[in-house]
Amino acid sequence: MDDGAAQAIASGGGTMKFPANKPLRLESGGSLPGLEVAYKTYGVLNAQKSNAILVCHALTGDQHAASPHPVTGKPGWWDRVIGPGLPLDPQRYFIICSNVIGGCMGSTGPGSLNPKTGEPYGLAFPVITIGDMVRAQAMLVEALGIETLFAVVGGSMGGMQVLQWAADYPEKLFSAICIAAAARHSAQNIAFHEVGRQAIMADPDWRSGEYEKHRVRPEKGLAVARMAAHITYLSEQALQRKFGRELQRDGLSWGFDADFQVESYLRHQGASFVDRFDANSYLYITRALDYFDLGAKHGGVLTEAFARARAVRFCILSFSSDWLYPTPESRDIVRALNAAGCRASFAEIESDKGHDAFFLDEPELDRILRGFLGANAQARGLA
Amino acid sequence: MDDGAAQAIASGGGTMKFPANKPLRLESGGSLPGLEVAYKTYGVLNAQKSNAILVCHALTGDQHAASPHPVTGKPGWWDRVIGPGLPLDPQRYFIICSNVIGGCMGSTGPGSLNPKTGEPYGLAFPVITIGDMVRAQAMLVEALGIETLFAVVGGSMGGMQVLQWAADYPEKLFSAICIAAAARHSAQNIAFHEVGRQAIMADPDWRSGEYEKHRVRPEKGLAVARMAAHITYLSEQALQRKFGRELQRDGLSWGFDADFQVESYLRHQGASFVDRFDANSYLYITRALDYFDLGAKHGGVLTEAFARARAVRFCILSFSSDWLYPTPESRDIVRALNAAGCRASFAEIESDKGHDAFFLDEPELDRILRGFLGANAQARGLA
Repeated sequence: MDDGAAQAIASGGGTMKFPANKPLRLESGGSLPGLEVAYKTYGVLNAQKSNAILVCHALTGDQHAASPHPVTGKPGWWDRVIGPGLPLDPQRYFIICSNVIGGCMGSTGPGSLNPKTGEPYGLAFPVITIGDMVRAQAMLVEALGIETLFAVVGGSMGGMQVLQWAADYPEKLFSAICIAAAARHSAQNIAFHEVGRQAIMADPDWRSGEYEKHRVRPEKGLAVARMAAHITYLSEQALQRKFGRELQRDGLSWGFDADFQVESYLRHQGASFVDRFDANSYLYITRALDYFDLGAKHGGVLTEAFARARAVRFCILSFSSDWLYPTPESRDIVRALNAAGCRASFAEIESDKGHDAFFLDEPELDRILRGFLGANAQARGLA
Repeated sequence: MDDGAAQAIASGGGTMKFPANKPLRLESGGSLPGLEVAYKTYGVLNAQKSNAILVCHALTGDQHAASPHPVTGKPGWWDRVIGPGLPLDPQRYFIICSNVIGGCMGSTGPGSLNPKTGEPYGLAFPVITIGDMVRAQAMLVEALGIETLFAVVGGSMGGMQVLQWAADYPEKLFSAICIAAAARHSAQNIAFHEVGRQAIMADPDWRSGEYEKHRVRPEKGLAVARMAAHITYLSEQALQRKFGRELQRDGLSWGFDADFQVESYLRHQGASFVDRFDANSYLYITRALDYFDLGAKHGGVLTEAFARARAVRFCILSFSSDWLYPTPESRDIVRALNAAGCRASFAEIESDKGHDAFFLDEPELDRILRGFLGANAQARGLA
């Protein structure tokens, strides 16, 4: 663990296919037959099956948390946190990360074949929720033979899944780490998502969601959606520090080319996103986020959602410059946990990097993850 | 002034057409022949010509500041501030508001006919700046026979024009009121505008700016641009207070209709905007805003821009919840004015309404405008 040398870390995964008689029950009332959940694992499950950590990904993430992305070839999105000697150490823990349902990296989603038609679902795919995503993860965890997760961890939408796990499957959790998230989507969050959806649906190549059939893709609309969303992931300070008013070339173009570096950066974000993400998945997953309101099913009282989670050890983290899920929303979660009698530690991490700080170099985040997991590993007898 | 009864207030205006030998000189180097400036006036110019106030409009505003909009039929955008008994009282002042060049309500813009082709300019229209807008206004003011403006007033992009007036024509100003603005566009501001421009240019009906020739309009793209921008005009608190997670109907639709009131509101903002605004004008005016950096021509030292403005009485105002042009940006202006030896009063108005607060019911804003203008009117001998 402390020799920095490269070591072979067991990594596995694949696609868990559930039989037709084990469909995914959906919050909307229906069910999804022939469920498939694509996942990756890092490390080895111990004999007691007590060292499993489930990592939940964010809106545009996927199961490739700590290994190169098969489409882009880029390092895993949480490569900085998962790895030998890192807070989520596969030499110690068995780390699982699965693609959410509704996604586009192998789990059942709107691009999957609709068994009724033999064509991709498109808009015939049912609207899914964070609860549905978590129910599919629970089926995967069970299929992997794991009764209790040592920890469930995630940032942004991943953090919402963590909270949902605590509400729905508290008996299966030893600890839970929710980073840069909220217990429900605010009006501003919904508004930004709606802009993205309208951008996609305004693209004539979207074809009412049946673009695959027409062999086109609503790339321009999806790129605009990504550009708008990307601004919300960064703080104003981070944008100013990184780009300010720096130009691409000497002098202004006096036209509509990308004059400013920030324009070029955003265009690149949009263009590279469409190579790896599906427009209908973007619609479905943003919808799941907007529908997320953990307290709603408990008479609007968030505390009630955590009533069965008193044995779970919680860590709630926020970033000071995150304006998408600002600190007060994490404080609301902590207050509800406290009122429910749960044990919850909380920290607001000082950072000027905005919401995306949880992906980035934040030593304070690493320190807290390491400390929280380490203390709980001892309590769990994983030392 | 204190009888609330309706009174006939002189109102006028029209389109000032400048002869071909008086083109508008442009910052880009070229010039615009056959300049037309559409304007409205409220009140009567006094014999000394000392009571004129120029009101500068924001990005999507126009000259119809205090009279019904000819397209929408809605009251003027600053109806709440301009009127008998109101801070900008046409019984006392001669109020002028002109459509910026690049606009679409009568002043020369990308929808005007290009004398070289007899067709609408489209992208052949030159990229213009806030300085160009102000130069056109100065030509209008001169053509109206006014040597000195008692005040120049504006919010948002209007505030930037106010600052530009102070830099370029300080000798023509007695006082200047800059509300909710900045001396230069931040990286985040540029980023949001770039999203809007990309949304417009992604619309196939934009046709490289020649949509009029093809008798189409990029309505979907323009609506998305407006939706994204509109979010930045409101504070998170205002959105939460107005809409929260309130639904349009009982229960969720489990689809992509507007489930939440905030979605429906945004869609309405987009749809109604395209009825009154032109897509190319949106491109040109956002570009002018992004290019705005008042200190840049003065070696990056904002103070130098105000070096000749020591006799102008300034009032700089910001709103506490404005995250588009947050208070620190107004403080930067005030610091530069102070360093230049100008007299500047400054107030941050407590409001949870966000950037758009200057359009809305803000008694503190009214009180300050009334006080500042009243004191200066005495100093100017307008009592």
